[in-house]
Amino acid sequence: MRGNSFGEFFTITTFGESHGVALGAVIDGVPAGLSLSEADLEVALGRRRPGQSSITTSRAEADEPEILSGVFEGKTLGSPICVIVRNHDARSKDYDPNYYRTGHADRVWQEKFGHRDHRGGGRASGRETLARVIGGVVAEKLIPDVKIVGFTRQIGPHRATTIPENLSRDMVDAHPTRCPDPAAAEAIQAALEQAKRDGDSFGGIVEIQISGASIGLGEPVFRKAKALLPGALMSVGAVVGVTLGDAHEDAQTRGLEFHQSAGGELSGISASANGIQGGITNGETIRLLVYFKPASTVGSMAKEGRHDPCIVPRAIPVLESMCALVMADLALAQRLDRAFACTEPEFSGNSEV
Amino acid sequence: MRGNSFGEFFTITTFGESHGVALGAVIDGVPAGLSLSEADLEVALGRRRPGQSSITTSRAEADEPEILSGVFEGKTLGSPICVIVRNHDARSKDYDPNYYRTGHADRVWQEKFGHRDHRGGGRASGRETLARVIGGVVAEKLIPDVKIVGFTRQIGPHRATTIPENLSRDMVDAHPTRCPDPAAAEAIQAALEQAKRDGDSFGGIVEIQISGASIGLGEPVFRKAKALLPGALMSVGAVVGVTLGDAHEDAQTRGLEFHQSAGGELSGISASANGIQGGITNGETIRLLVYFKPASTVGSMAKEGRHDPCIVPRAIPVLESMCALVMADLALAQRLDRAFACTEPEFSGNSEV
Amino acid sequence: MRGNSFGEFFTITTFGESHGVALGAVIDGVPAGLSLSEADLEVALGRRRPGQSSITTSRAEADEPEILSGVFEGKTLGSPICVIVRNHDARSKDYDPNYYRTGHADRVWQEKFGHRDHRGGGRASGRETLARVIGGVVAEKLIPDVKIVGFTRQIGPHRATTIPENLSRDMVDAHPTRCPDPAAAEAIQAALEQAKRDGDSFGGIVEIQISGASIGLGEPVFRKAKALLPGALMSVGAVVGVTLGDAHEDAQTRGLEFHQSAGGELSGISASANGIQGGITNGETIRLLVYFKPASTVGSMAKEGRHDPCIVPRAIPVLESMCALVMADLALAQRLDRAFACTEPEFSGNSEV
Amino acid sequence: MRGNSFGEFFTITTFGESHGVALGAVIDGVPAGLSLSEADLEVALGRRRPGQSSITTSRAEADEPEILSGVFEGKTLGSPICVIVRNHDARSKDYDPNYYRTGHADRVWQEKFGHRDHRGGGRASGRETLARVIGGVVAEKLIPDVKIVGFTRQIGPHRATTIPENLSRDMVDAHPTRCPDPAAAEAIQAALEQAKRDGDSFGGIVEIQISGASIGLGEPVFRKAKALLPGALMSVGAVVGVTLGDAHEDAQTRGLEFHQSAGGELSGISASANGIQGGITNGETIRLLVYFKPASTVGSMAKEGRHDPCIVPRAIPVLESMCALVMADLALAQRLDRAFACTEPEFSGNSEV
Repeated sequence: MRGNSFGEFFTITTFGESHGVALGAVIDGVPAGLSLSEADLEVALGRRRPGQSSITTSRAEADEPEILSGVFEGKTLGSPICVIVRNHDARSKDYDPNYYRTGHADRVWQEKFGHRDHRGGGRASGRETLARVIGGVVAEKLIPDVKIVGFTRQIGPHRATTIPENLSRDMVDAHPTRCPDPAAAEAIQAALEQAKRDGDSFGGIVEIQISGASIGLGEPVFRKAKALLPGALMSVGAVVGVTLGDAHEDAQTRGLEFHQSAGGELSGISASANGIQGGITNGETIRLLVYFKPASTVGSMAKEGRHDPCIVPRAIPVLESMCALVMADLALAQRLDRAFACTEPEFSGNSEV
Repeated sequence: MRGNSFGEFFTITTFGESHGVALGAVIDGVPAGLSLSEADLEVALGRRRPGQSSITTSRAEADEPEILSGVFEGKTLGSPICVIVRNHDARSKDYDPNYYRTGHADRVWQEKFGHRDHRGGGRASGRETLARVIGGVVAEKLIPDVKIVGFTRQIGPHRATTIPENLSRDMVDAHPTRCPDPAAAEAIQAALEQAKRDGDSFGGIVEIQISGASIGLGEPVFRKAKALLPGALMSVGAVVGVTLGDAHEDAQTRGLEFHQSAGGELSGISASANGIQGGITNGETIRLLVYFKPASTVGSMAKEGRHDPCIVPRAIPVLESMCALVMADLALAQRLDRAFACTEPEFSGNSEV
Repeated sequence: MRGNSFGEFFTITTFGESHGVALGAVIDGVPAGLSLSEADLEVALGRRRPGQSSITTSRAEADEPEILSGVFEGKTLGSPICVIVRNHDARSKDYDPNYYRTGHADRVWQEKFGHRDHRGGGRASGRETLARVIGGVVAEKLIPDVKIVGFTRQIGPHRATTIPENLSRDMVDAHPTRCPDPAAAEAIQAALEQAKRDGDSFGGIVEIQISGASIGLGEPVFRKAKALLPGALMSVGAVVGVTLGDAHEDAQTRGLEFHQSAGGELSGISASANGIQGGITNGETIRLLVYFKPASTVGSMAKEGRHDPCIVPRAIPVLESMCALVMADLALAQRLDRAFACTEPEFSGNSEV
Repeated sequence: MRGNSFGEFFTITTFGESHGVALGAVIDGVPAGLSLSEADLEVALGRRRPGQSSITTSRAEADEPEILSGVFEGKTLGSPICVIVRNHDARSKDYDPNYYRTGHADRVWQEKFGHRDHRGGGRASGRETLARVIGGVVAEKLIPDVKIVGFTRQIGPHRATTIPENLSRDMVDAHPTRCPDPAAAEAIQAALEQAKRDGDSFGGIVEIQISGASIGLGEPVFRKAKALLPGALMSVGAVVGVTLGDAHEDAQTRGLEFHQSAGGELSGISASANGIQGGITNGETIRLLVYFKPASTVGSMAKEGRHDPCIVPRAIPVLESMCALVMADLALAQRLDRAFACTEPEFSGNSEV
């Protein structure tokens, strides 16, 4: 297998099967001197943990992170940080090795590798995403001015229309649906509870807002910020689409209307750019929509097993983490942009202290 | 700058500014023994060249590719292939260095690097994409059984509804709009001609179909096929969204309905997966929608200059090329999956299914 | 920090400080279906463990490897393999944080990162190499036909002159000096025991023989086999030089004499190439010499502490592991050389010659 | 083929066969704002050009570099720099396709790829190294304080013993042997002229001194400066060994003697470290020895053809270039070491100018 590492400068390598001994991540490229503790990680892992409400699976893993390396006296050493979480509550007898679960990766995995861990999703399980959340915690330490907040924009026909200004994660987490529009949130919760009874499931749409990023993040060609963020988000399980802004609508809008809010020749900053121009951040808020297909486990199996009728609320911390990984990577990359950065006395000062 | 290289096993590195001496690409990781000629490249470059119809810019570059290395007696050597295209018709006086063009990357580039080629988009110009087309030609040589066809699904309110079976590039290219539904094509052409007169512009939606890919391409975590393809497509200029299938609709469909077409426990192949399960190809046709925002040059500048009112038709060969780069990369990666991949006969069988 | 990962196709990422919680490695790119157990790892780790004889330090870590992921029912899954070894016997009070140990990396590390784990070498400790040995075990599973054997060629003035044919690791391990020439071995052991009493130390020369590699491993330019192997070996602590064959002698030999043993025009295989021509393996035994400087801890500290007077014998398994990592990486790379590598029967033939 | 790219942050990708259309390099990761011209490149290429004296081959390529991209108004843009050199004087009829040249890569290449450019060395020709020299010129722009000077230390039995302080490239280039000890230089020249008459050849030893590097370059584990530099140098054609300092001697020296020149506990800088401790530069001069085997073309072919009896003098600019590539890469890497570099106001200042 390949592709268990992510990031060019700020790099995370994840490992672990859902029913193996442990899952975890090695995070490399982390500068020395950042504060980091297991408590930081526990808070973040708690936000993605199942078993928290009437609308999520009852699998109740402890998810206790253990930092094995890279931190000394509460600060990063500059060396790779390994964090592991051991698996406890893995009822593998739920799974029958003799068939391929509908809508899952069982069959393609068997074809690809000729050998698989049939006790659950293995490496393809959603449980793999806890390693991403671990990485996200470290990444956010590196970009303290960047604020990444995701929320449930729509589930089923229920769409949040009134979104508060200056949205925070606490505001989003206040409701189990992670929908910050109270009316929509109530409707969504009712729909999900009914779906769980019916053995039905939902997809949905998450909106992510990234604010506070400096101008100049992203590279002009293949590593555009608008390419890396969707590529990162699409790597999460049930995500089937990502758009910068509301592309579904913008693609149908005429240019004279779409561009009229552009900032003009003097500033060169376009309001309609949703935070990214030519692939590079322009200092404005980046706004992304993330589309989820309905959860794969439906019918009788959904009624019996420990499965969410909708993955969207629990997926939000994972999406935020993926964005954090990208933004931290680009923030490090930006240190390499200019010639004089390593010769100007003030930087030498930093490196010589 | 970074991010001028793409691909992990089949790697393309592109270079060149729109008004510099030349643009080009170095393609590495190409196995020895594939036939390749400049004529192959000319055909592909011709498909993205402007100046071909009433609805495209009149900049008429010759775009003559020159193979500098990596090919001997008509076959690849296994060594890196460098192809360049010199710039001829670069009327840089069209551009005024003293302002930032609306909706372009001029400002963010200036902020990022402190220095830019103000004669045009420079490295951020759409002209950069010809290097991607060059890469796509070579990539397709490596995956002869994979068929990648893109077409205009919608521009403005005009949506193609009747799409022929077994769509080919020739069928798509038969109309300058690259819309294979004749009625929609006519309506789109009229709308674009009107927009050009009005100084208006359009975005649109492209659909890409990838068929003939073997089962097992893609990696389970970060390098899922469903992540790499959108990440690649989002790196193209005006693209603002990519979805696997019609995610905008699927995100609003209930699970019992969505998954009813799944293949069942015996096959493990889901029809609703749009060709990718758990991030890995399942052997079915991959179907992607690519959303474009309206072209940035509008108003008086659009009426005078050499600008397309809609980039969508010309962008299709570029999108196809990006898909080819991803699929070739994954095809090479697949050679590494199993312990005895190259010698055990049964693997050859599997990879050919 | 960067540079904790090694290999392009077969990739190892290592982590851990000498006095932290644990050290370990994540090994990615391992094909599915290889057998692997903790017992395999214990044997290999035992070969580098200190405290085994009168000439090594008495630090007696258990070095118990735990496989956390990537193996199911005794076989690799194709997913990343994480192995950790917890630190037990870490007497950090031996170290005084207030000074920089002579000949160690303490000062440069402090300058570089502004923060370090002063309880020991931290990440720069020789204990880091156990992660390399773990990687070597997995790498060797992938290249069963390749035999990598290192031995002590010289320590001080004592040089092995009579080396048995078909040398094996068991033959080398039969003596604590890992010198397979009995006379030299005895002289070396006596010299090391005396050095330990004197607070003196030795460097030395290791010879490594790699046989059984197929023809065609290595890439023609920057990734020549003759560049990757020395680069890998030089990354080990006290190594200060690596040569292909006896370069110190060959550099002073005239061409007519040096090349007279060449295989001639028909075979194209040169005996004087020491197994690598143009950077690519030629199917013959690769012979490398690895030079070590004297161990850094000398004087009163050496008499009191737990330090080897000569690191050479214990380093041999680490050097072998680094060679295994390179050879496995090149073996995977070879699968990508030809257009139809995995399907054409004649290629299997070539790769087996 | 793989391995045509070198460097992690400062990256060079080279291409071209000795008898193809052109050779060249794409250099990526170059910060914006460095001055660069074709004249800079011509000077450097001139230093490696053959046909300059009685002791080198008479192949007299013009080697005219053409910058295709990445430079505007004499300064780097931050975008990738492509430079090509066309092949002119390629007398391919000298080569017979029907046999494998002794001591060359012809046979292994044929085995590896099943197809090769038999008109000369192709990609395996020494002519490939001009792309490395191009990269070296750009790399040195980035590290103006670092001085890299190589010189002929020994050819045959003739060893330079008196080396001037503050050695410069001009001082080295003053003699065609590039040996700065006049007596040794005369003896070497006489020996090479005689060898050319005899159809004999020589190897030799080059010493490289790297001074002016700041403290802290290199990474603690796999990317140690002492690993990257030898790995880079070993990738050059006839190089068969690289040592940090005189490892052949140091490996036989006892520790009490070797380490007595160490700087002591207060400074932590060891004079015996040859500029690198724990893999990281300590601010002192780095001293490397590079061993060459005798040139492969001997006997009647050597008398008739255009071949150097000794590649050592001409190889020196190539070796210096490889060191420059490594040092520039590590200088960029150093920008990523610490947490506060991107948050401290003075650096933000730089990036926002």
